[in-house]
Amino acid sequence: MTKTADTLLVNAHILTMDETLNQYRTGAIAISGEKIVAVGNEADIKSEYTAKEIIDCGGKILMPGLINAHTHVPMTLLRGLADDLRLDVWLMGYMLPVEREFVSPEFVKLGTSLACAEQIRSGITTFNDMYYFEEDVAKATVQAGMRAVLGQTVMKYPAPDAESFEVSLNKAREFIQGWKNHSLITPAVSPHAPYSCTPEILRATSNLAQEFDVPLHIHISETAYEVETMRKENGIPVVPYIKKHGILEAKVIAAHCVHIDSGEMRTLLHAGAGISHNPSSNLKLASGFAPVQKMLESGLNVGIGTDGPASNNDLDMFEEIRLASFVAKAVSNDPTVVPAVTALLMATRMGAKALHLGDVTGSLEVGKRADIILVDIMPLHNAPRFMRDLNNAYAQLVYASKSTDVTDVMVNGKWLMRSKKLLTLNETDLLEHAQDMAKKIDIFLIEREQSVLSKLIALGGSLEEESFEVQTKVRVSNPGTVSEKIQQPEIEIIRFRHYIEHDAYFSFDDEKQGRLRFREDDFLDEKGNTTNTRSRLTLLGVKREDKVADNVVLSRSRFFAPAIHSLRFYKEYFKPQQEVNIEKDRLRWLIRYKDTEFFVNLDKIIQPAAGHFLEIKSRTWSRTDAEHKAELVNELLELLGQKNAPTVTQDYIEFITTQP
Amino acid sequence: MTKTADTLLVNAHILTMDETLNQYRTGAIAISGEKIVAVGNEADIKSEYTAKEIIDCGGKILMPGLINAHTHVPMTLLRGLADDLRLDVWLMGYMLPVEREFVSPEFVKLGTSLACAEQIRSGITTFNDMYYFEEDVAKATVQAGMRAVLGQTVMKYPAPDAESFEVSLNKAREFIQGWKNHSLITPAVSPHAPYSCTPEILRATSNLAQEFDVPLHIHISETAYEVETMRKENGIPVVPYIKKHGILEAKVIAAHCVHIDSGEMRTLLHAGAGISHNPSSNLKLASGFAPVQKMLESGLNVGIGTDGPASNNDLDMFEEIRLASFVAKAVSNDPTVVPAVTALLMATRMGAKALHLGDVTGSLEVGKRADIILVDIMPLHNAPRFMRDLNNAYAQLVYASKSTDVTDVMVNGKWLMRSKKLLTLNETDLLEHAQDMAKKIDIFLIEREQSVLSKLIALGGSLEEESFEVQTKVRVSNPGTVSEKIQQPEIEIIRFRHYIEHDAYFSFDDEKQGRLRFREDDFLDEKGNTTNTRSRLTLLGVKREDKVADNVVLSRSRFFAPAIHSLRFYKEYFKPQQEVNIEKDRLRWLIRYKDTEFFVNLDKIIQPAAGHFLEIKSRTWSRTDAEHKAELVNELLELLGQKNAPTVTQDYIEFITTQP
Repeated sequence: MTKTADTLLVNAHILTMDETLNQYRTGAIAISGEKIVAVGNEADIKSEYTAKEIIDCGGKILMPGLINAHTHVPMTLLRGLADDLRLDVWLMGYMLPVEREFVSPEFVKLGTSLACAEQIRSGITTFNDMYYFEEDVAKATVQAGMRAVLGQTVMKYPAPDAESFEVSLNKAREFIQGWKNHSLITPAVSPHAPYSCTPEILRATSNLAQEFDVPLHIHISETAYEVETMRKENGIPVVPYIKKHGILEAKVIAAHCVHIDSGEMRTLLHAGAGISHNPSSNLKLASGFAPVQKMLESGLNVGIGTDGPASNNDLDMFEEIRLASFVAKAVSNDPTVVPAVTALLMATRMGAKALHLGDVTGSLEVGKRADIILVDIMPLHNAPRFMRDLNNAYAQLVYASKSTDVTDVMVNGKWLMRSKKLLTLNETDLLEHAQDMAKKIDIFLIEREQSVLSKLIALGGSLEEESFEVQTKVRVSNPGTVSEKIQQPEIEIIRFRHYIEHDAYFSFDDEKQGRLRFREDDFLDEKGNTTNTRSRLTLLGVKREDKVADNVVLSRSRFFAPAIHSLRFYKEYFKPQQEVNIEKDRLRWLIRYKDTEFFVNLDKIIQPAAGHFLEIKSRTWSRTDAEHKAELVNELLELLGQKNAPTVTQDYIEFITTQP
Repeated sequence: MTKTADTLLVNAHILTMDETLNQYRTGAIAISGEKIVAVGNEADIKSEYTAKEIIDCGGKILMPGLINAHTHVPMTLLRGLADDLRLDVWLMGYMLPVEREFVSPEFVKLGTSLACAEQIRSGITTFNDMYYFEEDVAKATVQAGMRAVLGQTVMKYPAPDAESFEVSLNKAREFIQGWKNHSLITPAVSPHAPYSCTPEILRATSNLAQEFDVPLHIHISETAYEVETMRKENGIPVVPYIKKHGILEAKVIAAHCVHIDSGEMRTLLHAGAGISHNPSSNLKLASGFAPVQKMLESGLNVGIGTDGPASNNDLDMFEEIRLASFVAKAVSNDPTVVPAVTALLMATRMGAKALHLGDVTGSLEVGKRADIILVDIMPLHNAPRFMRDLNNAYAQLVYASKSTDVTDVMVNGKWLMRSKKLLTLNETDLLEHAQDMAKKIDIFLIEREQSVLSKLIALGGSLEEESFEVQTKVRVSNPGTVSEKIQQPEIEIIRFRHYIEHDAYFSFDDEKQGRLRFREDDFLDEKGNTTNTRSRLTLLGVKREDKVADNVVLSRSRFFAPAIHSLRFYKEYFKPQQEVNIEKDRLRWLIRYKDTEFFVNLDKIIQPAAGHFLEIKSRTWSRTDAEHKAELVNELLELLGQKNAPTVTQDYIEFITTQP
């Protein structure tokens, strides 16, 4: 008595990628609803099953769809925007400014659709994403019919979809609540990376992932610089650091892991973390060579990812699989390392496990979802075909197949591509809309190509300050009072310095460029002798932000960079329209008041002579924290005897240039 | 007054890849006969030229065809035959045995046609080959319409097309004479590599290349092992060694150069040598990371090659170009290294220069041959397209284009592909014939998969001995005479040793497998104490070769390997049907006679007792040399007083097992 399935695929060379690597040279597979109900030799399956739809695969390879273990799909719209640049110039000069200007729900949907089309064409059935507006990524992914783990980004910097991390955390919670238990989408939370998150963010995202039992997707040890900085600042490598802050209590997907040691591998293994190795990205950005062979030997589930198409520049898993094998061989000095079958496993069964989807997809086994691709391995560039050894088929796929050899793709029992024709997406429309977007971005970048910010960033080493600066400034008629009152039990003085500040302010034709400040600090000892000098460049925006409390101004992020060249160099490089010089004598205390650190500056403007001023400042990544600090600033003003002193809301440069 | 060209290509985005990297965003090119007669903005060209055929390129990229700077095209037929193996196992276990069995003029023609089809499809217009029967490679290449530098291989080992290097040298000379000044083919000579050629071969091939002013194509410093061995044996690195033997006096194309230092780069630059960098092959075979950035900085012309498709496994230059950029960045720890435009130059203008074809092809310039491709850079995997910066086009081609995006190919003014349809080759026929060949090779390998040789090779470290062994053996009744007469002025004794040899001979059911000998030598000092022990495995073929002179046997190559395991291990591993043991006392002199070295063995067979024997032996790669040595052996027999001693043509094992 034969059973009935929905679809029967016959006359295929089946690579199951299951635990025993079963192959069926003339095999068949039966699918009902979302699932695989039988897989085996054609004769056996045919005798057991009949189906409404019977498809002859013409001897092609039938195998599980590929798992793209790490990407940022909407960045497809930024492909080829800027290449061959150092990471800081690429990221801060191009990616971040363009993302802030353009990334919206519409941008994200278009980019996701375009990426899904490309991924389906290249045999990917599941991807693991990290981006903004992940709710909209989810909608576009479902429309395309693909399976995905989608992580809503949380980080300390302002994001296109959130001015602060508190907003991102809320978005992540809502996203997870809304999409939990969807048949295609696994919602997740993505603290961007240890260096871009505060310990508080790491803990909160881990708690969120645990609360809903969803994956947590994070970048780990991508560059040597990241690891060095971590060791310098916290005395430990990256994996122990995230463990300390609770990350490993969640189901982690760790992208990159280029610079981790064997102790860190054991820690990740013990935590059940999955890894995504991203060879193209690691090579193109010169991040280094991930210890793939060692990670595999340690027992970790290592998947393979394309990373975002702005650093790859495509979503071609065939290229990544080949590179994963090639690079591992070269780095190990051993051509037998990561053989074809292992590389293909990383992109299928092991990749699914790395995404914590091992029970759902990644191999052709009864009960798993029908995520299936057909690959033609007899085109010109892959002829002839040897069949002596079962490994020949894996070698063909890994060492000579192209993504363009994929002819048919099914996800969750539903066809997304038949004979190279996409069934769920309109390619022509997508290409047209993408090109419109590229034109707008081109225009935006041409306009700002000559901007002061981009030139500052091009110098390298520039950093963005914390988002929020809480600050107050008052005119002081009795400076001695401040110096005296600061010595009281409620205020703990952590550090005190005395220096002369020489500031040169550059301004430009276009006011929107803001002002660039070149500052040299001459540090003085008790006798008034210069002991040390420091200089830095800071770009100050024109627009200052809203008041958060009486007398307290909340300003937005600024860029600064160490100034390693002379004032003359910077004048020639930035070509300012005007230069104004200010010299002041500054007494600067770093204090702690009610468990919060502040800088207190008591300034005497020497050149041009303009009297004494008191500044109280603090920076933070959190708006909630900023509001709390604003209150404390007002208390401090009172403690220092300046409650009624006249407030100055202008910067010194504005104050001085607008004085009569 | 407008001029008339044969063909006008209009509405293209032209990348000339000329010295000033001119681009024409809407450009046109005029072609007459084999050559480019004009290139520039469409409006200018149209106003100056009219043509019989005007082709609208639909805004595609029009650029010079790609140069594949190093390959072995007929090996396309061995693609995917054996992968993920150590070099010795891959080469001696699979490639060489299959080549010896199958490589013929027909094999070479079929493989070349298949490779040309694949190369045309992927935008390659010129390739640089090294293989056997290069005359037949040339015929197939001309039929396909491609441009090529074709190097007839010369090496010390017997080749599929020559039993000795003298034959290869003659073939190379005839090939060069026959094809010199062909419009598509540049004939060349290819001494395979310094380690596979004798100094005599290096000198002779250089002389030949200089005589006809053709390129000399050679593998240089591909592996660290090659360089170490060179330093150990000759005390210098590889480049000084080939310089010493005259190679650099020719127009050299040096493939690989993975392990060369800056001094060697200067030497190559000074010699005007071109380099072929082969990233996929270097990665897949774990050869190492070539110092590409340093070679470029030194001023060398570095082209890019696919290497043979048995170690790649395809002929996809888009993949190689991308890898050349990616790997250079990763190794230099600098993402700005080998930017897209440089990688593309390496595959076009610089690659042509590396092949000494800089005046002929590699860029779109008036007077150069019309070697042109059209590439569609707006498919899904390459959308959208940014146009802000002239570098955007190079980045698109290098970081996201696929070989399958090439739509049209012209070589020497003649179309080879239009709209992805091949015009000079029948793909269906080629695929069918290639598959027939693969079936035959599969059967051959299945039959020998269990052979003793393949098992010996699988142990690693095995070597093939010189092709020809000149040897004589006589029964000696007066051994004292030999010891005495060897001390005479005409014979210079270089070394003398005394040892006991313990031989275990394994034989097998299938006589064709030959005999495997496990030999332990116990070296004795003057007092007869053992000072040292050495063991090795040798595979002896069944068939001994022809006599070259009275009493002198010429035998063919054998394989041997150091025996690092115990006799017990080898018995279990090889499972011989029979084992015979022989023990002998050997006095062994290494002597020089008339400027020629010989080994003289005076043996006493102890177990089973069988009397005394004298052997005189010498090995050589050259048949001419073998014949000369055979004469000297007879003279030596006389000098040692054994002119009339009875000759034994059998090996000891045969002699002993056939004694009554």
